[in-house]
Amino acid sequence: MSILEKIHSSNDIKQLNTEELPVLCKEIRSFLIQTVSETGGHLASNLGTVELTVALHRVYDTQHDRIVFDVGHQSYTHKIITGRRDKLHTLRQFGGISGFPKPYEAVDDAFIAGHASNSVSVALGMAHARTLSGEDYDICAVIGDGAMTGGLSFEGLSNAAMSGEPLVVILNDNNMSIAENVGGTARLLQSMRVKPAYLNFKRHYRKLFSHLPALYTFNHHVKEWLKEHLIPDDMFTGMGFDYLGPIDGHDLRTLENVIRWARDMRKPVLIHVLTKKGKGCAYAEANPELYHGVGPFDPETGILVPEKEGFCSRFGALLCRYAESDPKIAAITAAMSGGTGLEGFAARFPERFYDIGIAEEHAASMAGGMAKQGLIPVFAVYSSFLQRAFDMLIHDISLQKLHAVFAVDRAGLVGRDGETHQGAFDVSFLSAVPGMTIYAPASFAELDAMLGLALYGCEGPVAIRYPRGGEGAYSDCHTEAEFVLREGRDITIVSYGVMINEALAAADKLAPEGVSAEVIKIGRIRPNGFDETRLSVKKTKRLVVVEDVCAFGGVGAQILSSLAGMSDGFAFRLLNLGDGIVPHGSVEELRHLCGIDAQGIAQSAKALVGEE
Amino acid sequence: MSILEKIHSSNDIKQLNTEELPVLCKEIRSFLIQTVSETGGHLASNLGTVELTVALHRVYDTQHDRIVFDVGHQSYTHKIITGRRDKLHTLRQFGGISGFPKPYEAVDDAFIAGHASNSVSVALGMAHARTLSGEDYDICAVIGDGAMTGGLSFEGLSNAAMSGEPLVVILNDNNMSIAENVGGTARLLQSMRVKPAYLNFKRHYRKLFSHLPALYTFNHHVKEWLKEHLIPDDMFTGMGFDYLGPIDGHDLRTLENVIRWARDMRKPVLIHVLTKKGKGCAYAEANPELYHGVGPFDPETGILVPEKEGFCSRFGALLCRYAESDPKIAAITAAMSGGTGLEGFAARFPERFYDIGIAEEHAASMAGGMAKQGLIPVFAVYSSFLQRAFDMLIHDISLQKLHAVFAVDRAGLVGRDGETHQGAFDVSFLSAVPGMTIYAPASFAELDAMLGLALYGCEGPVAIRYPRGGEGAYSDCHTEAEFVLREGRDITIVSYGVMINEALAAADKLAPEGVSAEVIKIGRIRPNGFDETRLSVKKTKRLVVVEDVCAFGGVGAQILSSLAGMSDGFAFRLLNLGDGIVPHGSVEELRHLCGIDAQGIAQSAKALVGEE
Repeated sequence: MSILEKIHSSNDIKQLNTEELPVLCKEIRSFLIQTVSETGGHLASNLGTVELTVALHRVYDTQHDRIVFDVGHQSYTHKIITGRRDKLHTLRQFGGISGFPKPYEAVDDAFIAGHASNSVSVALGMAHARTLSGEDYDICAVIGDGAMTGGLSFEGLSNAAMSGEPLVVILNDNNMSIAENVGGTARLLQSMRVKPAYLNFKRHYRKLFSHLPALYTFNHHVKEWLKEHLIPDDMFTGMGFDYLGPIDGHDLRTLENVIRWARDMRKPVLIHVLTKKGKGCAYAEANPELYHGVGPFDPETGILVPEKEGFCSRFGALLCRYAESDPKIAAITAAMSGGTGLEGFAARFPERFYDIGIAEEHAASMAGGMAKQGLIPVFAVYSSFLQRAFDMLIHDISLQKLHAVFAVDRAGLVGRDGETHQGAFDVSFLSAVPGMTIYAPASFAELDAMLGLALYGCEGPVAIRYPRGGEGAYSDCHTEAEFVLREGRDITIVSYGVMINEALAAADKLAPEGVSAEVIKIGRIRPNGFDETRLSVKKTKRLVVVEDVCAFGGVGAQILSSLAGMSDGFAFRLLNLGDGIVPHGSVEELRHLCGIDAQGIAQSAKALVGEE
Repeated sequence: MSILEKIHSSNDIKQLNTEELPVLCKEIRSFLIQTVSETGGHLASNLGTVELTVALHRVYDTQHDRIVFDVGHQSYTHKIITGRRDKLHTLRQFGGISGFPKPYEAVDDAFIAGHASNSVSVALGMAHARTLSGEDYDICAVIGDGAMTGGLSFEGLSNAAMSGEPLVVILNDNNMSIAENVGGTARLLQSMRVKPAYLNFKRHYRKLFSHLPALYTFNHHVKEWLKEHLIPDDMFTGMGFDYLGPIDGHDLRTLENVIRWARDMRKPVLIHVLTKKGKGCAYAEANPELYHGVGPFDPETGILVPEKEGFCSRFGALLCRYAESDPKIAAITAAMSGGTGLEGFAARFPERFYDIGIAEEHAASMAGGMAKQGLIPVFAVYSSFLQRAFDMLIHDISLQKLHAVFAVDRAGLVGRDGETHQGAFDVSFLSAVPGMTIYAPASFAELDAMLGLALYGCEGPVAIRYPRGGEGAYSDCHTEAEFVLREGRDITIVSYGVMINEALAAADKLAPEGVSAEVIKIGRIRPNGFDETRLSVKKTKRLVVVEDVCAFGGVGAQILSSLAGMSDGFAFRLLNLGDGIVPHGSVEELRHLCGIDAQGIAQSAKALVGEE
């Protein structure tokens, strides 16, 4: 029996002796590589935090203590330790284990995670609640150096530092966020990484403490020694944190001792831990960005199952083509140059490519400044992360009618990353931005044409939203606000983007059953008067609108508002993601779950036709 | 003729000699006090930045150089200098000068301002545009220490520091944002304020430079001396800025010399300037928070024209009453304890009152942590500033169905602060948040009852939205989702919040003209099936929905979606703020402008009735 098989909780970790712990870490790494090679998921960040996670469970008990993981894609080891090893093969599968912390999965998962930089704020809120309620559990936030580039983390640190709350923040510094860190935050951390005292600390600390845990909180003299040797005069100290570090994030014993000591200081403490992404796996260590988030791969060689071309890489290639002939085009990414297909642009036009860290708010405001002075900024960003910049879209772009382009990737269902990553809200919140034009290409050809329109055919802010993955059977090009793709007499089916493929397939299913469906594709969501749809509904008296975003503010709701008061009544069904909270699974499974696949659409259509 | 009367541009400022400048500053201060005492506006912050603004115009020319003011309420002196002195008596009046920078007012206003912390990001975008376009104007961001508590400023600084762009950031440090600064940022700055070298600098620098401007960029030796004496090893330097300071912000000569030197360094430079809010006006210096933003007052004594009780102060008193009997209630403000009526709460329950700085994102995420661990957090925040936390409302609150209360102040038209501050979008973006309950009290009695429902009658996130100012004629209490306030047969008028007073007044106007209006008040915007409205419209066949928010996602659009497909047709008008961009003026003037006052509603109703 392996050691790993004996582990079901924080308590089991605490029973292991110092010989067993390194073996456990090795077993966890093998298990991670094997599992992720089959399911896909986040590899490099999880390999880098094995010792850190084990050390956390040596000190804390996640049945009542609260460990808040930032972003949360590094929580696989935590899940393995807390009773979910047997289910890890269902990782990111529909109905299986999520790739991110989920309190509904286990009480050990303190808080939902998925978007970056919130962990210190959340942990501080928990610390306040703990203290006000007179309870006595411990709280620890684990944040990466990538998430540290987000301003929200700075707000959290600034408030936590002066709170006086017993609270430990672990800065997991792997010298690289998803793409390589840029900006002043990275430089600040760089200067701290080289502090020479850190090896000495290990030697002294081990000798003094390894067998005397009970003395930690009493030994004033040794604390003073540690402070002197480990706490430099840095930003964190200036804010009011006690700073400990840097610590070797793969030295389990030191990690455990320092975390325990920090916990027992009963005040805000920041531990600076240095880890290596991909640790213990040659190909992941060599190329941590490639193995950050991956699909299935060969566990021996790391060779990835190739993915077919998606909207993302097409977008990157097209933007290069437009930029070739227009020096005014500048591209911005928030630490996602690979994810948004901008790597080629970065290589070709480095002087007008800006990777600004995980800072969507800054990206939008900076785009405002660029547009005001005559550039055409193109901010490529995932739909769910653009939610962060909602105010900046209004305040820094829209109020001055500035022409900035938002390339909204991962719009609609994204699949295996689940509810935090579904692009379920962009149609709603982008439509609320005054003067925003919104394009929804359904094919690569439309992506090309609509990107051209976004760059040169619009005034004011413009968004072009496209999904994860590639195009379907529909590969034509119709950029019109509305276009009748297929004529019919019994029912009007409206959709946009790649969902048009499901609508067309539904029409195919309905035809042999004697239901003649008219299919209208929306090419430009806003502005749109929905005149073709109105005409069609006047004829068919029945309407189905299909989209993979939330109901509120979606195209369905917009059409209903637009058609209200029409003198002839009509029957309708809006098919969408409901409130927008959709779990993880394949896109196909989730479409089926929400009743927006061809089968679901056909069923709804038949029900409407049968209702008279 | 005063010196002030000769000033119409940056160039005029540059013509003044060293004897005239202090006189000019004195004249500007008198003019500011006199004008703001009549118009209301931001007093203390403008008095504090007279010398700084004059120095900026000595160095820059805002006809082509770009000065980006953060928040922008400190831009009155800038407006006076750049040709708008004669119009300053129209400050904040409908059709008059805005209280914030507005590029549509003058080319000297580089960018729109109103929300905090974006200036460095915007300036960096401008710097990139300038550099890529091969142009040669200068760029300077002016940010207060209050705005520095917002994470967006940190994102901007982090990116600007490493950009290499010629760019000057002036940190206007008055040791106080709107309320007194809290948190680690304030502590960091505090440690910098005490640097002893700064008085020496003035002496040496003046002697060396006051008559030798052309030598600035060449005198390497002196630069080294300055660096040594003025640049400490701080956060900004760690990020990559050259840091100069602290500088006495009322020493015009030093300010001018240092800004010019920083400009000529051709790299990212941060100048730390210490100013005194309310400078030169005894009552404003003594109580800068009171005289931050004021209505009209007596310029001699500072005695303010008393305002009648508003929803804001009522909310504060009510929350105290609820908190008295419930230790789980905690209150959060983002640097607006006065503005949101929480001063009483802060005094009475300091242990559970959190002023977290201008950091709405953090406030919402922290509220998530608090709610997860059993508190009832109440975040009181202006509608337009809550836009900043849209993602956190979804990610950190809604996805886990956490019960957090958002007291959304300044919802709807706010009046004289104009387009950046109108609470025009909250109904739309809050409705998009899954599971969000939204209450809209129309009277103080409803505020009380609905706050009770928000605290104890709801699950998940809940917002209670109320306007600037007080209640109108309607002072009853009906908390129902819909309530028929007045029966009628010809037309259905739906409204909510204090706008119900305009709807009722419109019905009064219509009655003598033979139009019988049914008036329905919406008490809870979401969830709401609009059944009463449907019944009423079935009867009247005509619908008018009145609200002071944007059309998209408003209650009008929600009702139309809900009524769509109704077998009997109906005629309708949605009366609202259109796209949500509404300039400054009194609330009454703006309601009239948008056609949502009693007169406008009655006109629309009559038009509908006359349409058959």
